[in-house]
Amino acid sequence: MSNYLRSTGTLGAVTQRSGDPIAEATRQWCEHGWADAAPGMSAITSLMRAHQIALARAEGALKPHGITFARYEVLMLLEFSSRGSLPMGVIGSRLQVHPTSVTNAVDRLESAGLVRREPHPSDRRATLVAITDAGREVARAATADLNTKVFADPGLEPHDVATITEVLERYRRDAGDF
Amino acid sequence: MSNYLRSTGTLGAVTQRSGDPIAEATRQWCEHGWADAAPGMSAITSLMRAHQIALARAEGALKPHGITFARYEVLMLLEFSSRGSLPMGVIGSRLQVHPTSVTNAVDRLESAGLVRREPHPSDRRATLVAITDAGREVARAATADLNTKVFADPGLEPHDVATITEVLERYRRDAGDF
Repeated sequence: MSNYLRSTGTLGAVTQRSGDPIAEATRQWCEHGWADAAPGMSAITSLMRAHQIALARAEGALKPHGITFARYEVLMLLEFSSRGSLPMGVIGSRLQVHPTSVTNAVDRLESAGLVRREPHPSDRRATLVAITDAGREVARAATADLNTKVFADPGLEPHDVATITEVLERYRRDAGDF
Repeated sequence: MSNYLRSTGTLGAVTQRSGDPIAEATRQWCEHGWADAAPGMSAITSLMRAHQIALARAEGALKPHGITFARYEVLMLLEFSSRGSLPMGVIGSRLQVHPTSVTNAVDRLESAGLVRREPHPSDRRATLVAITDAGREVARAATADLNTKVFADPGLEPHDVATITEVLERYRRDAGDF
């Protein structure tokens, strides 16, 4: 922590004590009369920061494979599909991402030779995305690295791993994620 | 769900049954012999999707105020600082974001008139970022909306709100977030 922050008044002092910026924000929320929103602010902000940490780790493991986590998810969806291909729209709804994000991910995967666009056999308005052999190789190698470097030891005790999955399943279900 | 997915083999069928793509991925992980990494994959992927949901809600509440959640965090850090200003480097370390992200957020806030850059009084190499009166107004109005529309009813039962905060505090602490 810089000397500047150390030397400033209340905020600096409290930050020194608690160390956790989210605990500090919670204190501020309560002081400002927003106590009813403080627990939610704390939970949602925790989610944002935890995501930042998890994403950095996942992208660190994926970097040697030349893909982002968003592109990895698209690859795995195709890898696990029975035909090795899915319509663009299905990819978007399964990953709950905006069509433009799917288009962007597929563009990048296609120029790397990992997927290719194909005409849909029965629906002329739809486009299929098919995983290539090179795509399957990257999917497998990237998964091996992600499993070893992130998922097998995700930075949480086994009990917390189960709790997070369970609580966030309720959150996702209520939000219409599936 | 599209007819295409409904009509495909195992994946479509299982997806129909469980409905949850993360449960389906967990099943696939176990089937492929990656059972030891399956719980971590499930927890981390849950975090990614929950973040997507939370971010969309927060940015929905912030949109009328013309700021993103990243810029909101910078504004609030300045709003809560005792002098109404902080060095660029302190903003980055408090928010745990990359210097280029801080520069980007500050650029956008500055061109909207919500912050201004100032020379540091004692460190010629450092730049201070100060919140303006307009910035304080936006911070207050945005917080009121976020509190009402997202934080007061964050989409989790009170018990789950506390659990998420607590588990992710351990995760963040172990990752060096504070």
